[in-house]
Amino acid sequence: MQFDALNQEIREFCDERDWEQFHTPKDLAIGLSTESNELLEQFRFKDTEEQAALLEDAGSRQAIEAELADVLFFTLRFADLYDVDLEQALADKLDTNRERYPKDEYASSNKKYDE
Amino acid sequence: MQFDALNQEIREFCDERDWEQFHTPKDLAIGLSTESNELLEQFRFKDTEEQAALLEDAGSRQAIEAELADVLFFTLRFADLYDVDLEQALADKLDTNRERYPKDEYASSNKKYDE
Amino acid sequence: MQFDALNQEIREFCDERDWEQFHTPKDLAIGLSTESNELLEQFRFKDTEEQAALLEDAGSRQAIEAELADVLFFTLRFADLYDVDLEQALADKLDTNRERYPKDEYASSNKKYDE
Amino acid sequence: MQFDALNQEIREFCDERDWEQFHTPKDLAIGLSTESNELLEQFRFKDTEEQAALLEDAGSRQAIEAELADVLFFTLRFADLYDVDLEQALADKLDTNRERYPKDEYASSNKKYDE
Repeated sequence: MQFDALNQEIREFCDERDWEQFHTPKDLAIGLSTESNELLEQFRFKDTEEQAALLEDAGSRQAIEAELADVLFFTLRFADLYDVDLEQALADKLDTNRERYPKDEYASSNKKYDE
Repeated sequence: MQFDALNQEIREFCDERDWEQFHTPKDLAIGLSTESNELLEQFRFKDTEEQAALLEDAGSRQAIEAELADVLFFTLRFADLYDVDLEQALADKLDTNRERYPKDEYASSNKKYDE
Repeated sequence: MQFDALNQEIREFCDERDWEQFHTPKDLAIGLSTESNELLEQFRFKDTEEQAALLEDAGSRQAIEAELADVLFFTLRFADLYDVDLEQALADKLDTNRERYPKDEYASSNKKYDE
Repeated sequence: MQFDALNQEIREFCDERDWEQFHTPKDLAIGLSTESNELLEQFRFKDTEEQAALLEDAGSRQAIEAELADVLFFTLRFADLYDVDLEQALADKLDTNRERYPKDEYASSNKKYDE
Protein backbone atom coordinates (compact mmCIF):
# COMPACT_ATOMS: atom_id res chain seq x y z
CA MET A 1 0.00 0.00 0.00
CA GLN A 2 2.71 2.46 1.05
CA PHE A 3 4.97 1.38 -1.81
CA ASP A 4 1.99 1.66 -4.16
CA ALA A 5 1.24 5.23 -3.11
CA LEU A 6 4.87 6.30 -3.44
CA ASN A 7 5.22 4.52 -6.78
CA GLN A 8 2.20 6.37 -8.05
CA GLU A 9 3.66 9.72 -7.04
CA ILE A 10 7.02 8.89 -8.63
CA ARG A 11 5.31 7.71 -11.80
CA GLU A 12 3.41 10.98 -12.14
CA PHE A 13 6.55 13.00 -11.53
CA CYS A 14 8.41 11.07 -14.25
CA ASP A 15 5.54 10.92 -16.72
CA GLU A 16 4.96 14.68 -16.52
CA ARG A 17 8.54 15.07 -17.73
CA ASP A 18 8.51 12.13 -20.16
CA TRP A 19 11.54 10.64 -18.44
CA GLU A 20 10.77 6.94 -18.83
CA GLN A 21 12.86 6.95 -22.00
CA PHE A 22 16.00 7.52 -19.88
CA HIS A 23 15.16 4.93 -17.25
CA THR A 24 16.86 1.82 -18.58
CA PRO A 25 17.81 -0.78 -15.98
CA LYS A 26 21.45 0.26 -16.38
CA ASP A 27 20.77 3.96 -15.85
CA LEU A 28 18.53 3.37 -12.84
CA ALA A 29 21.27 1.20 -11.34
CA ILE A 30 23.67 4.08 -12.01
CA GLY A 31 21.17 6.28 -10.17
CA LEU A 32 21.33 3.95 -7.17
CA SER A 33 25.11 3.87 -7.19
CA THR A 34 25.63 7.61 -7.60
CA GLU A 35 23.05 8.57 -4.96
CA SER A 36 24.38 5.96 -2.51
CA ASN A 37 27.77 7.51 -2.97
CA GLU A 38 26.50 11.02 -2.32
CA LEU A 39 25.26 9.63 0.97
CA LEU A 40 28.51 7.79 1.62
CA GLU A 41 30.53 10.89 0.81
CA GLN A 42 29.03 12.63 3.84
CA PHE A 43 30.73 10.10 6.14
CA ARG A 44 34.09 9.90 4.36
CA PHE A 45 37.02 10.28 6.78
CA LYS A 46 34.59 10.75 9.71
CA ASP A 47 34.87 8.73 12.92
CA THR A 48 31.89 7.38 14.84
CA GLU A 49 31.38 10.51 16.94
CA GLU A 50 31.56 12.76 13.91
CA GLN A 51 29.00 10.58 12.11
CA ALA A 52 26.63 10.94 15.07
CA ALA A 53 27.19 14.73 15.09
CA LEU A 54 26.26 14.92 11.40
CA LEU A 55 22.95 13.24 12.22
CA GLU A 56 22.28 15.66 15.07
CA ASP A 57 22.96 18.84 13.12
CA ALA A 58 19.79 19.95 11.31
CA GLY A 59 21.57 21.02 8.12
CA SER A 60 23.65 17.91 7.57
CA ARG A 61 20.76 15.66 8.67
CA GLN A 62 18.62 17.22 5.96
CA ALA A 63 21.30 16.53 3.34
CA ILE A 64 21.63 12.93 4.55
CA GLU A 65 17.88 12.37 4.46
CA ALA A 66 17.67 13.85 0.96
CA GLU A 67 20.34 11.42 -0.31
CA LEU A 68 18.57 8.46 1.29
CA ALA A 69 15.34 9.63 -0.37
CA ASP A 70 17.14 9.66 -3.73
CA VAL A 71 18.21 6.05 -3.16
CA LEU A 72 14.63 5.10 -2.32
CA PHE A 73 13.40 6.96 -5.40
CA PHE A 74 15.56 4.88 -7.73
CA THR A 75 14.79 1.63 -5.86
CA LEU A 76 11.05 2.16 -6.21
CA ARG A 77 11.36 3.37 -9.78
CA PHE A 78 13.37 0.30 -10.80
CA ALA A 79 10.88 -2.03 -9.12
CA ASP A 80 7.89 -0.25 -10.66
CA LEU A 81 9.22 -0.16 -14.23
CA TYR A 82 10.67 -3.68 -14.24
CA ASP A 83 8.01 -5.50 -12.23
CA VAL A 84 9.92 -6.36 -9.09
CA ASP A 85 7.75 -7.19 -6.08
CA LEU A 86 9.98 -5.51 -3.52
CA GLU A 87 8.23 -6.94 -0.50
CA GLN A 88 8.58 -10.48 -1.85
CA ALA A 89 12.16 -9.88 -2.97
CA LEU A 90 13.12 -8.66 0.50
CA ALA A 91 11.34 -11.59 2.19
CA ASP A 92 13.20 -14.01 -0.11
CA LYS A 93 16.51 -12.32 0.59
CA LEU A 94 15.97 -12.49 4.34
CA ASP A 95 15.26 -16.22 3.96
CA THR A 96 18.50 -16.66 2.05
CA ASN A 97 20.39 -14.70 4.68
CA ARG A 98 18.87 -16.68 7.55
CA GLU A 99 20.40 -19.77 5.93
CA ARG A 100 23.72 -18.14 5.09
CA TYR A 101 24.06 -16.62 8.54
CA PRO A 102 22.77 -19.08 11.18
CA LYS A 103 22.19 -17.01 14.29
CA ASP A 104 24.38 -18.95 16.67
CA GLU A 105 27.32 -19.10 14.31
CA TYR A 106 27.14 -15.43 13.32
CA ALA A 107 26.19 -13.82 16.64
CA SER A 108 28.27 -10.64 16.96
CA SER A 109 30.24 -11.67 13.89
CA ASN A 110 31.01 -9.38 10.96
CA LYS A 111 32.34 -12.18 8.74
CA LYS A 112 30.84 -12.74 5.32
CA TYR A 113 29.23 -16.14 4.78
CA ASP A 114 31.79 -16.98 2.08
CA GLU A 115 34.80 -15.57 3.91
CA MET B 1 2.54 0.38 7.57
CA GLN B 2 4.46 -1.57 4.91
CA PHE B 3 7.76 0.05 5.87
CA ASP B 4 6.94 -0.60 9.51
CA ALA B 5 6.35 -4.31 8.93
CA LEU B 6 9.55 -4.70 6.91
CA ASN B 7 11.53 -2.68 9.46
CA GLN B 8 10.30 -4.97 12.18
CA GLU B 9 11.41 -8.07 10.29
CA ILE B 10 14.83 -6.56 9.55
CA ARG B 11 15.22 -5.50 13.18
CA GLU B 12 14.54 -9.04 14.39
CA PHE B 13 16.96 -10.49 11.87
CA CYS B 14 19.72 -8.09 13.00
CA ASP B 15 18.97 -8.32 16.72
CA GLU B 16 19.07 -12.12 16.68
CA ARG B 17 22.65 -11.80 15.44
CA ASP B 18 23.57 -8.76 17.56
CA TRP B 19 24.61 -6.87 14.44
CA GLU B 20 23.58 -3.35 15.45
CA GLN B 21 27.13 -2.78 16.68
CA PHE B 22 28.36 -2.92 13.05
CA HIS B 23 25.65 -0.68 11.65
CA THR B 24 27.21 2.76 11.86
CA PRO B 25 25.90 5.33 9.38
CA LYS B 26 29.15 4.97 7.41
CA ASP B 27 28.97 1.18 7.18
CA LEU B 28 25.29 1.19 6.21
CA ALA B 29 26.10 3.72 3.48
CA ILE B 30 28.89 1.35 2.37
CA GLY B 31 26.23 -1.36 2.32
CA LEU B 32 24.11 0.77 -0.03
CA SER B 33 27.03 1.53 -2.31
CA THR B 34 28.35 -2.03 -2.52
CA GLU B 35 24.92 -3.59 -3.09
CA SER B 36 23.99 -0.94 -5.68
CA ASN B 37 27.17 -1.83 -7.48
CA GLU B 38 26.43 -5.54 -7.43
CA LEU B 39 23.21 -4.61 -9.19
CA LEU B 40 25.01 -2.26 -11.58
CA GLU B 41 27.61 -4.89 -12.36
CA GLN B 42 24.92 -7.06 -13.95
CA PHE B 43 24.38 -4.42 -16.64
CA ARG B 44 28.03 -3.51 -17.27
CA PHE B 45 28.88 -3.51 -20.99
CA LYS B 46 25.31 -4.58 -21.85
CA ASP B 47 23.22 -2.74 -24.43
CA THR B 48 19.50 -2.06 -24.05
CA GLU B 49 18.38 -5.35 -25.59
CA GLU B 50 20.77 -7.35 -23.45
CA GLN B 51 19.51 -5.56 -20.34
CA ALA B 52 15.94 -6.52 -21.26
CA ALA B 53 17.03 -10.13 -21.84
CA LEU B 54 18.59 -10.26 -18.37
CA LEU B 55 15.24 -9.26 -16.90
CA GLU B 56 13.41 -11.93 -18.89
CA ASP B 57 15.68 -14.81 -17.97
CA ALA B 58 14.53 -16.36 -14.68
CA GLY B 59 18.03 -16.90 -13.31
CA SER B 60 19.41 -13.44 -13.95
CA ARG B 61 16.12 -11.81 -12.91
CA GLN B 62 16.40 -13.56 -9.56
CA ALA B 63 19.93 -12.24 -9.09
CA ILE B 64 18.82 -8.73 -10.02
CA GLU B 65 15.86 -8.83 -7.63
CA ALA B 66 18.11 -10.11 -4.83
CA GLU B 67 20.50 -7.17 -5.31
CA LEU B 68 17.64 -4.68 -5.31
CA ALA B 69 16.36 -6.30 -2.10
CA ASP B 70 19.80 -5.79 -0.54
CA VAL B 71 19.64 -2.10 -1.41
CA LEU B 72 16.18 -1.85 0.17
CA PHE B 73 17.44 -3.72 3.24
CA PHE B 74 20.15 -1.14 3.88
CA THR B 75 17.84 1.79 3.08
CA LEU B 76 15.24 0.63 5.60
CA ARG B 77 17.88 -0.28 8.16
CA PHE B 78 19.50 3.16 7.93
CA ALA B 79 16.13 4.88 8.27
CA ASP B 80 15.09 2.71 11.20
CA LEU B 81 18.31 3.07 13.20
CA TYR B 82 18.80 6.78 12.55
CA ASP B 83 15.20 7.98 12.70
CA VAL B 84 14.60 8.97 9.11
CA ASP B 85 10.95 9.21 8.09
CA LEU B 86 11.42 7.80 4.59
CA GLU B 87 7.97 8.70 3.36
CA GLN B 88 8.43 12.32 4.44
CA ALA B 89 11.99 12.45 3.09
CA LEU B 90 10.83 11.21 -0.31
CA ALA B 91 7.90 13.68 -0.38
CA ASP B 92 10.30 16.51 0.47
CA LYS B 93 12.74 15.41 -2.22
CA LEU B 94 10.01 15.26 -4.84
CA ASP B 95 9.00 18.82 -3.87
CA THR B 96 12.60 19.94 -4.31
CA ASN B 97 12.81 18.20 -7.67
CA ARG B 98 9.53 19.68 -8.89
CA GLU B 99 11.14 23.09 -8.35
CA ARG B 100 14.50 22.14 -9.81
CA TYR B 101 12.93 20.51 -12.84
CA PRO B 102 9.88 22.53 -13.99
CA LYS B 103 7.93 20.18 -16.22
CA ASP B 104 7.83 22.32 -19.32
CA GLU B 105 11.49 23.15 -19.25
CA TYR B 106 12.63 19.57 -18.58
CA ALA B 107 10.17 17.64 -20.73
CA SER B 108 12.15 14.85 -22.45
CA SER B 109 15.36 16.41 -21.14
CA ASN B 110 18.15 14.49 -19.43
CA LYS B 111 20.00 17.63 -18.34
CA LYS B 112 20.83 18.12 -14.68
CA TYR B 113 19.31 21.21 -13.04
CA ASP B 114 22.77 22.66 -12.40
CA GLU B 115 24.25 21.72 -15.77
CA MET C 1 59.40 5.85 -11.98
CA GLN C 2 56.25 7.79 -12.96
CA PHE C 3 54.23 6.26 -10.13
CA ASP C 4 57.12 7.05 -7.76
CA ALA C 5 57.18 10.72 -8.75
CA LEU C 6 53.39 11.08 -8.40
CA ASN C 7 53.41 9.19 -5.10
CA GLN C 8 56.01 11.56 -3.79
CA GLU C 9 53.94 14.59 -4.72
CA ILE C 10 50.81 13.09 -3.16
CA ARG C 11 52.71 12.19 0.00
CA GLU C 12 53.96 15.76 0.40
CA PHE C 13 50.47 17.15 -0.16
CA CYS C 14 49.02 14.83 2.51
CA ASP C 15 51.87 15.19 4.98
CA GLU C 16 51.71 18.99 4.88
CA ARG C 17 48.10 18.66 6.09
CA ASP C 18 48.74 15.73 8.44
CA TRP C 19 46.04 13.72 6.69
CA GLU C 20 47.51 10.22 6.99
CA GLN C 21 45.45 9.76 10.18
CA PHE C 22 42.28 9.76 8.04
CA HIS C 23 43.61 7.44 5.36
CA THR C 24 42.53 4.02 6.61
CA PRO C 25 42.09 1.34 3.93
CA LYS C 26 38.32 1.66 4.35
CA ASP C 27 38.27 5.44 3.91
CA LEU C 28 40.58 5.35 0.90
CA ALA C 29 38.30 2.72 -0.66
CA ILE C 30 35.40 5.08 0.08
CA GLY C 31 37.43 7.76 -1.70
CA LEU C 32 37.71 5.52 -4.76
CA SER C 33 34.01 4.70 -4.77
CA THR C 34 32.79 8.27 -4.26
CA GLU C 35 35.13 9.76 -6.87
CA SER C 36 34.33 7.00 -9.39
CA ASN C 37 30.69 7.86 -8.90
CA GLU C 38 31.26 11.56 -9.46
CA LEU C 39 32.75 10.52 -12.78
CA LEU C 40 29.89 8.11 -13.48
CA GLU C 41 27.31 10.74 -12.60
CA GLN C 42 28.45 12.80 -15.59
CA PHE C 43 27.27 10.04 -17.94
CA ARG C 44 24.01 9.16 -16.18
CA PHE C 45 21.07 9.02 -18.60
CA LYS C 46 23.34 10.03 -21.50
CA ASP C 47 23.47 8.07 -24.75
CA THR C 48 26.64 7.35 -26.69
CA GLU C 49 26.54 10.57 -28.72
CA GLU C 50 25.92 12.67 -25.64
CA GLN C 51 28.84 10.99 -23.90
CA ALA C 52 31.08 11.87 -26.84
CA ALA C 53 29.82 15.47 -26.78
CA LEU C 54 30.71 15.75 -23.07
CA LEU C 55 34.27 14.77 -23.93
CA GLU C 56 34.46 17.33 -26.72
CA ASP C 57 33.18 20.28 -24.71
CA ALA C 58 36.07 21.96 -22.87
CA GLY C 59 34.14 22.58 -19.67
CA SER C 60 32.69 19.11 -19.18
CA ARG C 61 35.97 17.49 -20.31
CA GLN C 62 37.79 19.38 -17.58
CA ALA C 63 35.28 18.12 -14.99
CA ILE C 64 35.66 14.54 -16.27
CA GLU C 65 39.45 14.72 -16.20
CA ALA C 66 39.36 16.13 -12.67
CA GLU C 67 37.22 13.20 -11.44
CA LEU C 68 39.53 10.68 -13.12
CA ALA C 69 42.46 12.41 -11.43
CA ASP C 70 40.71 12.00 -8.06
CA VAL C 71 40.37 8.27 -8.71
CA LEU C 72 44.06 8.04 -9.57
CA PHE C 73 44.91 10.04 -6.44
CA PHE C 74 43.19 7.53 -4.17
CA THR C 75 44.58 4.54 -6.11
CA LEU C 76 48.14 5.77 -5.74
CA ARG C 77 47.61 6.81 -2.13
CA PHE C 78 46.24 3.38 -1.19
CA ALA C 79 49.13 1.62 -2.92
CA ASP C 80 51.71 3.91 -1.34
CA LEU C 81 50.40 3.66 2.24
CA TYR C 82 49.66 -0.07 2.16
CA ASP C 83 52.62 -1.29 0.11
CA VAL C 84 50.91 -2.43 -3.04
CA ASP C 85 53.19 -2.75 -6.06
CA LEU C 86 50.66 -1.49 -8.60
CA GLU C 87 52.65 -2.48 -11.64
CA GLN C 88 53.00 -6.05 -10.36
CA ALA C 89 49.36 -6.19 -9.25
CA LEU C 90 48.19 -5.10 -12.70
CA ALA C 91 50.49 -7.59 -14.44
CA ASP C 92 49.15 -10.37 -12.19
CA LYS C 93 45.57 -9.34 -12.87
CA LEU C 94 46.13 -9.32 -16.62
CA ASP C 95 47.57 -12.84 -16.32
CA THR C 96 44.46 -13.95 -14.43
CA ASN C 97 42.22 -12.35 -17.04
CA ARG C 98 44.10 -13.91 -19.94
CA GLU C 99 43.21 -17.27 -18.42
CA ARG C 100 39.64 -16.36 -17.56
CA TYR C 101 38.99 -14.85 -20.96
CA PRO C 102 40.74 -16.96 -23.65
CA LYS C 103 40.89 -14.73 -26.68
CA ASP C 104 39.12 -16.98 -29.13
CA GLU C 105 36.26 -17.77 -26.80
CA TYR C 106 35.72 -14.16 -25.71
CA ALA C 107 36.31 -12.33 -28.98
CA SER C 108 33.65 -9.59 -29.25
CA SER C 109 31.94 -11.05 -26.19
CA ASN C 110 30.76 -9.03 -23.20
CA LYS C 111 30.02 -12.10 -21.10
CA LYS C 112 31.61 -12.44 -17.66
CA TYR C 113 33.87 -15.48 -17.19
CA ASP C 114 31.50 -16.84 -14.49
CA GLU C 115 28.27 -16.00 -16.32
CA MET D 1 56.81 5.99 -19.44
CA GLN D 2 55.30 3.62 -16.89
CA PHE D 3 51.75 4.59 -17.84
CA ASP D 4 52.70 4.19 -21.51
CA ALA D 5 53.99 0.67 -21.00
CA LEU D 6 50.92 -0.38 -18.99
CA ASN D 7 48.59 1.27 -21.50
CA GLN D 8 50.24 -0.67 -24.26
CA GLU D 9 49.74 -3.96 -22.45
CA ILE D 10 46.09 -3.15 -21.69
CA ARG D 11 45.48 -2.12 -25.28
CA GLU D 12 46.85 -5.42 -26.60
CA PHE D 13 44.74 -7.38 -24.12
CA CYS D 14 41.58 -5.53 -25.20
CA ASP D 15 42.35 -5.52 -28.92
CA GLU D 16 42.98 -9.27 -28.97
CA ARG D 17 39.39 -9.68 -27.72
CA ASP D 18 37.91 -6.83 -29.78
CA TRP D 19 36.53 -5.25 -26.64
CA GLU D 20 36.86 -1.56 -27.56
CA GLN D 21 33.24 -1.67 -28.78
CA PHE D 22 32.09 -2.12 -25.16
CA HIS D 23 34.33 0.56 -23.69
CA THR D 24 32.12 3.65 -23.83
CA PRO D 25 32.90 6.38 -21.29
CA LYS D 26 29.80 5.34 -19.34
CA ASP D 27 30.71 1.66 -19.19
CA LEU D 28 34.32 2.35 -18.22
CA ALA D 29 33.03 4.62 -15.43
CA ILE D 30 30.76 1.74 -14.38
CA GLY D 31 33.90 -0.42 -14.39
CA LEU D 32 35.57 2.02 -12.00
CA SER D 33 32.57 2.15 -9.69
CA THR D 34 31.97 -1.60 -9.56
CA GLU D 35 35.63 -2.48 -9.02
CA SER D 36 36.04 0.24 -6.37
CA ASN D 37 33.10 -1.29 -4.59
CA GLU D 38 34.54 -4.78 -4.73
CA LEU D 39 37.52 -3.28 -2.94
CA LEU D 40 35.31 -1.38 -0.51
CA GLU D 41 33.26 -4.49 0.22
CA GLN D 42 36.33 -6.13 1.76
CA PHE D 43 36.36 -3.49 4.50
CA ARG D 44 32.61 -3.32 5.17
CA PHE D 45 31.77 -3.56 8.88
CA LYS D 46 35.48 -3.96 9.73
CA ASP D 47 37.20 -1.82 12.35
CA THR D 48 40.70 -0.41 11.98
CA GLU D 49 42.44 -3.46 13.44
CA GLU D 50 40.48 -5.83 11.25
CA GLN D 51 41.37 -3.76 8.21
CA ALA D 52 45.04 -4.03 9.10
CA ALA D 53 44.68 -7.79 9.61
CA LEU D 54 43.17 -8.14 6.13
CA LEU D 55 46.26 -6.49 4.69
CA GLU D 56 48.57 -8.78 6.62
CA ASP D 57 46.90 -12.04 5.64
CA ALA D 58 48.31 -13.26 2.31
CA GLY D 59 44.97 -14.42 0.91
CA SER D 60 42.96 -11.31 1.64
CA ARG D 61 45.87 -9.07 0.63
CA GLN D 62 45.95 -10.75 -2.76
CA ALA D 63 42.20 -10.13 -3.21
CA ILE D 64 42.63 -6.48 -2.19
CA GLU D 65 45.54 -5.97 -4.58
CA ALA D 66 43.57 -7.59 -7.41
CA GLU D 67 40.66 -5.18 -6.89
CA LEU D 68 43.00 -2.19 -6.81
CA ALA D 69 44.55 -3.46 -10.05
CA ASP D 70 41.07 -3.60 -11.61
CA VAL D 71 40.52 0.04 -10.65
CA LEU D 72 43.87 0.98 -12.21
CA PHE D 73 42.99 -1.02 -15.33
CA PHE D 74 39.81 1.01 -15.93
CA THR D 75 41.52 4.30 -15.05
CA LEU D 76 44.27 3.72 -17.59
CA ARG D 77 41.85 2.37 -20.18
CA PHE D 78 39.60 5.44 -19.87
CA ALA D 79 42.57 7.79 -20.17
CA ASP D 80 44.02 5.92 -23.13
CA LEU D 81 40.78 5.71 -25.14
CA TYR D 82 39.58 9.24 -24.41
CA ASP D 83 42.89 11.11 -24.51
CA VAL D 84 43.29 12.11 -20.90
CA ASP D 85 46.84 13.02 -19.87
CA LEU D 86 46.66 11.48 -16.41
CA GLU D 87 49.88 13.00 -15.16
CA GLN D 88 48.72 16.47 -16.16
CA ALA D 89 45.21 15.89 -14.81
CA LEU D 90 46.60 14.82 -11.44
CA ALA D 91 48.99 17.79 -11.31
CA ASP D 92 46.09 20.14 -12.10
CA LYS D 93 43.91 18.52 -9.44
CA LEU D 94 46.63 18.84 -6.81
CA ASP D 95 46.92 22.53 -7.71
CA THR D 96 43.18 22.96 -7.24
CA ASN D 97 43.31 21.13 -3.92
CA ARG D 98 46.25 23.18 -2.67
CA GLU D 99 44.02 26.24 -3.12
CA ARG D 100 40.90 24.61 -1.68
CA TYR D 101 42.76 23.24 1.31
CA PRO D 102 45.35 25.80 2.50
CA LYS D 103 47.73 23.82 4.68
CA ASP D 104 47.44 25.87 7.83
CA GLU D 105 43.68 25.97 7.77
CA TYR D 106 43.26 22.27 7.01
CA ALA D 107 46.04 20.79 9.12
CA SER D 108 44.63 17.63 10.79
CA SER D 109 41.18 18.58 9.50
CA ASN D 110 38.82 16.19 7.74
CA LYS D 111 36.40 18.95 6.70
CA LYS D 112 35.47 19.33 3.04
CA TYR D 113 36.38 22.70 1.50
CA ASP D 114 32.69 23.44 0.90
CA GLU D 115 31.45 22.17 4.26
